[in-house]
Amino acid sequence: MSYDRMCPRYEQAAALLGKKWTGLILRILMGGPRRFCDFRAQVPDLSDRLLSERLKELEEEGVVERVVHDTRPVLIEYILTDKGWALKDVVQSIEAWAETWVEPPQSDPHGTTQEESQTAPA
Amino acid sequence: MSYDRMCPRYEQAAALLGKKWTGLILRILMGGPRRFCDFRAQVPDLSDRLLSERLKELEEEGVVERVVHDTRPVLIEYILTDKGWALKDVVQSIEAWAETWVEPPQSDPHGTTQEESQTAPA
Repeated sequence: MSYDRMCPRYEQAAALLGKKWTGLILRILMGGPRRFCDFRAQVPDLSDRLLSERLKELEEEGVVERVVHDTRPVLIEYILTDKGWALKDVVQSIEAWAETWVEPPQSDPHGTTQEESQTAPA
Repeated sequence: MSYDRMCPRYEQAAALLGKKWTGLILRILMGGPRRFCDFRAQVPDLSDRLLSERLKELEEEGVVERVVHDTRPVLIEYILTDKGWALKDVVQSIEAWAETWVEPPQSDPHGTTQEESQTAPA
C-alpha cells in the first residue's frame, strides 16, 4: 500500500481505537446489545460523563447505534453496526499482542520493567 | 473474559498505536531497517521533531531498536524488535478496516485524487 494512501484513513482509525475506554466499550458490545447501566455495572471505573462521550463519538463514527425501543418505560440500547462488528479482528489482534507483550515486570520476555521503560497513558 | 484483566494492557497497547504517525512509522519499518532520513523521504509531512519523538517512544516501549553501526561515518538504523514485528497483525487489521470503512478526508492535505479514494460500504 502506498504511504500517502494509507496515512489519513489509518490515522483516523488508530486515533479512534487509541482513545481510553473505547476498546473496552467495543469489547463489551461484542457480547450483544447493552444499556447504559450495563456498561457502568461492568466497568465501575468509567464515569457517566466519559461513557456518554465515548458512546457519542462511536455513534458519530457509525460504529455504534443507539436504538430506542418504543416501550414503557422507553428502553435504550447500544449495538454495534456492521462497521463496528468489522472491528472485531482489530480488537482481538490488539488484545492478543497486549496479552503477549505488555506484561508485568516479572514475566516481561525482555526483562525490562514497565515503570522504567514506558510512560503510562493518562 | 475478564474486563479487569483486559483493560490496562489493552489500553496501553491501544494508546501507543493510536498516536499520530506511529502506525506509519511501524509500517515503514516492516519494510526493513531504516535511517532517520529514510522516514523523512517517505513521509515529507512528518517533522524531524515529531519523528524523533515517536522513534524514542517506540524505543522506550521496546518496539523499535536503534542500531549504531561502527562505520565511518557512523551509520544509525532503526529496526523492529520481536515485540515490534508482533504488531504486524495489528497494523494490518487496522489497515484493512480503515480501507473498507473509513472515508478519506474531504480536503486531503496530501492531494489524493478522488479516483484513488474508496467509498465505504453503506
